[in-house]
Amino acid sequence: MSVYLHDIPLSQAQSRLEAALREADLWRVLGIDTIPLDENALGRTLAEPVWAKTSSPHYHASAMDGFAVRAAETAGALQTRPVSLQIPDQACYLDTGDPLPSGFDSVIPIENTEALDEHSELTDAIRDPATIRIRASVAPWTHVRPLGEDIVATELVLPAGHVLRPADLGAIAAAGHTEIRVARKPRVAILPTGTELVPIGTQLKPGDILEYNSLVMAAQVKDMGGEPTRFPITSDDFDRICERVQEAAQEHDLILLNAGSSAGAEDFSSKVVEKLGTLLVHGVAVRPGHPVIMGMVTRESKIENRKPEIPIVGVPGYPVSAALTIEIFVEPLIAKWLGRRPKVMPTETAQLTRKITSPGGDDDFVRVAVGRVGEKLLAAPLSRGAGVITSLVRADGLVLLPHGTQGAEAGEQVQVRLYRPRAELDKTIFCIGSHDMTLDLIAQFLAGHDRRLASANVGSQGGLVALRRGEAHLAGSHLLDPETGEYNVSYIRQYLPGVKVKVVTLVGREQGLIVTPGNPKGIRSLDDLSRPGADSARVSFVNRQRGAGTRVLLDYQLNQLGIVADSIIGYNQEEYTHLGVAAAVASGRADCGLGIAAAAQALNLDFIPLYQERYDLVIPKEHAESDLLTPLFAVLENREFRAAVAALPGYDVGRMGTLVVED
Amino acid sequence: MSVYLHDIPLSQAQSRLEAALREADLWRVLGIDTIPLDENALGRTLAEPVWAKTSSPHYHASAMDGFAVRAAETAGALQTRPVSLQIPDQACYLDTGDPLPSGFDSVIPIENTEALDEHSELTDAIRDPATIRIRASVAPWTHVRPLGEDIVATELVLPAGHVLRPADLGAIAAAGHTEIRVARKPRVAILPTGTELVPIGTQLKPGDILEYNSLVMAAQVKDMGGEPTRFPITSDDFDRICERVQEAAQEHDLILLNAGSSAGAEDFSSKVVEKLGTLLVHGVAVRPGHPVIMGMVTRESKIENRKPEIPIVGVPGYPVSAALTIEIFVEPLIAKWLGRRPKVMPTETAQLTRKITSPGGDDDFVRVAVGRVGEKLLAAPLSRGAGVITSLVRADGLVLLPHGTQGAEAGEQVQVRLYRPRAELDKTIFCIGSHDMTLDLIAQFLAGHDRRLASANVGSQGGLVALRRGEAHLAGSHLLDPETGEYNVSYIRQYLPGVKVKVVTLVGREQGLIVTPGNPKGIRSLDDLSRPGADSARVSFVNRQRGAGTRVLLDYQLNQLGIVADSIIGYNQEEYTHLGVAAAVASGRADCGLGIAAAAQALNLDFIPLYQERYDLVIPKEHAESDLLTPLFAVLENREFRAAVAALPGYDVGRMGTLVVED
Repeated sequence: MSVYLHDIPLSQAQSRLEAALREADLWRVLGIDTIPLDENALGRTLAEPVWAKTSSPHYHASAMDGFAVRAAETAGALQTRPVSLQIPDQACYLDTGDPLPSGFDSVIPIENTEALDEHSELTDAIRDPATIRIRASVAPWTHVRPLGEDIVATELVLPAGHVLRPADLGAIAAAGHTEIRVARKPRVAILPTGTELVPIGTQLKPGDILEYNSLVMAAQVKDMGGEPTRFPITSDDFDRICERVQEAAQEHDLILLNAGSSAGAEDFSSKVVEKLGTLLVHGVAVRPGHPVIMGMVTRESKIENRKPEIPIVGVPGYPVSAALTIEIFVEPLIAKWLGRRPKVMPTETAQLTRKITSPGGDDDFVRVAVGRVGEKLLAAPLSRGAGVITSLVRADGLVLLPHGTQGAEAGEQVQVRLYRPRAELDKTIFCIGSHDMTLDLIAQFLAGHDRRLASANVGSQGGLVALRRGEAHLAGSHLLDPETGEYNVSYIRQYLPGVKVKVVTLVGREQGLIVTPGNPKGIRSLDDLSRPGADSARVSFVNRQRGAGTRVLLDYQLNQLGIVADSIIGYNQEEYTHLGVAAAVASGRADCGLGIAAAAQALNLDFIPLYQERYDLVIPKEHAESDLLTPLFAVLENREFRAAVAALPGYDVGRMGTLVVED
Repeated sequence: MSVYLHDIPLSQAQSRLEAALREADLWRVLGIDTIPLDENALGRTLAEPVWAKTSSPHYHASAMDGFAVRAAETAGALQTRPVSLQIPDQACYLDTGDPLPSGFDSVIPIENTEALDEHSELTDAIRDPATIRIRASVAPWTHVRPLGEDIVATELVLPAGHVLRPADLGAIAAAGHTEIRVARKPRVAILPTGTELVPIGTQLKPGDILEYNSLVMAAQVKDMGGEPTRFPITSDDFDRICERVQEAAQEHDLILLNAGSSAGAEDFSSKVVEKLGTLLVHGVAVRPGHPVIMGMVTRESKIENRKPEIPIVGVPGYPVSAALTIEIFVEPLIAKWLGRRPKVMPTETAQLTRKITSPGGDDDFVRVAVGRVGEKLLAAPLSRGAGVITSLVRADGLVLLPHGTQGAEAGEQVQVRLYRPRAELDKTIFCIGSHDMTLDLIAQFLAGHDRRLASANVGSQGGLVALRRGEAHLAGSHLLDPETGEYNVSYIRQYLPGVKVKVVTLVGREQGLIVTPGNPKGIRSLDDLSRPGADSARVSFVNRQRGAGTRVLLDYQLNQLGIVADSIIGYNQEEYTHLGVAAAVASGRADCGLGIAAAAQALNLDFIPLYQERYDLVIPKEHAESDLLTPLFAVLENREFRAAVAALPGYDVGRMGTLVVED
């Protein structure tokens, strides 16, 4: 049914492609464009070195508004014994940039001269004095920009391979050029294939997959300095795909064939490459993204006696795999074709917040969120799913677990290749703990204050544990103490002994049962979860993970009602967020789940309100008093923010910002 | 004659502009463009938050090619006790991405199943088995991507103010959008003014100044996300400038009026702003760039009863001042108008290689080259001249000496705001010492090896001193020992006692007198430098700085000839490079100077060969053996490189790469 992939190491895959490109004389700058020297040259790569044609300045220029003089004639001038110079024989007015007249060798700034009229009277009024008086001598070449001060004709201004920045354009102009020779942009064809694919904007049916990989890949190619062409979707039809590849080959330097690179029934990519040229690689020991294909295809459909002449990359279908394939395999190729150095991501050492495991055979790229908490730079692993494009959006960097390693432990120091400048990471507020929809709104409002909110949902208790480990700036928590009926305080004392904290209320909110629209099973309370009867009458539940505040609330209430967990269908089916619970109900995976009203409304579900609870922000004092968090407190006071939260169903902002604890 | 500037602190200038913009309701995102979600959205700034319209996946999807099953029906399957499942009632084949049929809750990858034909015989051949056999049970939801795994409808995908990257476009598409609302690009008019300005490409006369500031500023504005318009040059004519400003005001959000911002006779900018609106600032305590002007002007020529409504910045004329003015004043404004955070340059601590002084009253921005030598990150101050655009090209960062400080000492730790990523700086080879034109060629060839050569010209002895201080990877040196007639070795032992070095010869080269074309003064040898006679018959000289190898050679030869330095006109006139000496001769500042043939040829001067000398590279062993320098030795062996050097006049590559010393 399928030809299995054979994964080879990354470096070997890259060498095979390089060898094939050398063989085809394509391991070089592809071509040269001569373009005018204007702002559109920005970001282009010099194909040739720029040597200076002229010097700058090209004459001795006055560096000030003032008088050209001969230094020798100023000798002996003192504050108490001024020297007078006759105009125009001994001094001559120059604006900044004017050429030094022949015979003069220095400039005295106008503010260091006194203007005398014809009768040698000191005056402020006249613009063209007959004589000037000075009270200090000057050395030769003072306030003069000598010929070639900036650039001397023939010297190297910029080497080939340099990517042009604004100031470079000025230097090239100053060196006498009006045009520049830059590397031609590699033309990259992007071919999405798959019968299940639909273009963005399509009304979706189950099984439809939105085709946005070509969008991401085109943007990546553009960002790298290439010129992308997006082709329409081709269905899984071997002959149609071959035609499209041949078509794309006419006008492009590289073909990216998206999906069909795996080994399934409709994965044609490797066969297409074999038919049209040479298959070099099928499978690379890299995660995510291992079913990568590399090959060379010909421009002509008759391939007898023709050497393969265009590289083709079969890019895996999962969005994260696709994007990383472009980063890992295509970026160095485009760099080579432009003659620039490959992009090097800056690297920092960070502390891993939780254990990650890795299949030992692969180079494993793990997306992480990165932020500074106190003195520590932390790397928090994000979703590993190759289908989770938001993990790339949230990623601040990549941790590479090289093949041969089995993973890394929580607390281990790891090297992170950073996507964002360090300065930006230092403005990141790490919020970990219970999920609340208000956090999205906080993120939105904080962005206006030059702060970024990175939130991870690990439940209320998980948040307090993270605070204890120094792995977050604050935690959102709604933990009910069954003994006292109070929220959070007893848990904070238990989990954070000796830590000085500030606890402020964020919101009051309703918890209840999120149910299928119309509530067909007539659910009224938690009692219904264990109701007996025929399978069709019984109620299936979706739970929150252990440590979540909602889970604590559930267990507390079940205990009050004398309901045993084992009697509930789906008690062990866990989701990590309120919206996750709502989505499970919306999809029919469960009849109901305990959560907040806003989550139900978001997915057009019904909601049965049961309990009121308080959601607080727990902030260690050292962070509460830091500059980093100052804008957070401003947001809590912001009227627009409060109005936006109050508009969410089941939310009460009456106690927002109220101090619960301050140590 | 002029109205003097009044410099105010940077923060005060910025507040004044901000207050005026708030007053005019312009301290906000200027407008919103709705654009299609395609690769051209890259780099645009979101004007509104993006909330998810749909979930992704929008159904439960198979994560593998395999069979949908009910987890409960797989219970009990073991390696030794397979379970059979009937198709289509108990199992159903799915490709990756297919929706899970109703009633199924898990997927078993095809490679973990055995296909059986109708008669329950195991077979590889059939594509549509009647039954499959499995040898392990699965838990519910295994290999399923549940609805909303990536994105749940209603959640925040990206906040307003976010600058779009490739993966963001994918996430926005996955969330159900086909268009996005981004901040309108601020339209920035750039008006170069000055009677002395000529466009690039003009045949230059003395006094002409190439107008390239508008090019640099346009590129900066574009880079920051604005939309620049370059206007033609306007001469220094008050009324014409007023007209142009009014014209630009019609269609733009910001006017940059270049030059005329000082206080000279033809500096009209402040008067133009006063006439057309309100002058807010004239002079900021920032170096370079202090004569900055800020104001607001109106769109209408009749200004009665109209409030000023367009900001205008009078940008100083010197290219470095102009570029830094845009960085310091215009970047934060464009950031505000786009709703993004201002650009933050990453900062590193580096050790200053030489003392810098600063006028205490200003925020002083010093351009520095940055590189790592051994364990130390070094910042080498570059030319401070505001006219030296190449200092911006060479700059790897800026050191800010805040007002109130008097400068910084050599060896002091300073904060550097970096223009380049740290990873790139770590690939920089610092070469300091004597200047040779070959170094430009080395820089060119090294660029192809992912290395950057930063060279500073401080003379041969200066280079050895820098090596002793650990401030460079290598030094170029051509120091003649008068006692032994040998080059470099005795100096290296004297300057670098106990340091293990590798010394290799770079080139042999001719030193001689660079003279005016046609040699009108009939110069033949050094004897002519002190020849007596009428002023017009005597010969003026331009010297190299103390410590330069050429200076050592000169002094040695003068001594041999019994010529006293005092008898030479211009002996104290010093230049730092061979080309500097040649430029001095070309400009008529001196009749001759001692230097190399290539420099004479570069500027079309005549050359009188006098001596042969050897130019070596001195490399401390720790650097010679480092990865960083490996490509340097490859370049010395490169045939193309040798041919390029041999083509320079007076150069001999016969001994290139020969080992002189290896400790």
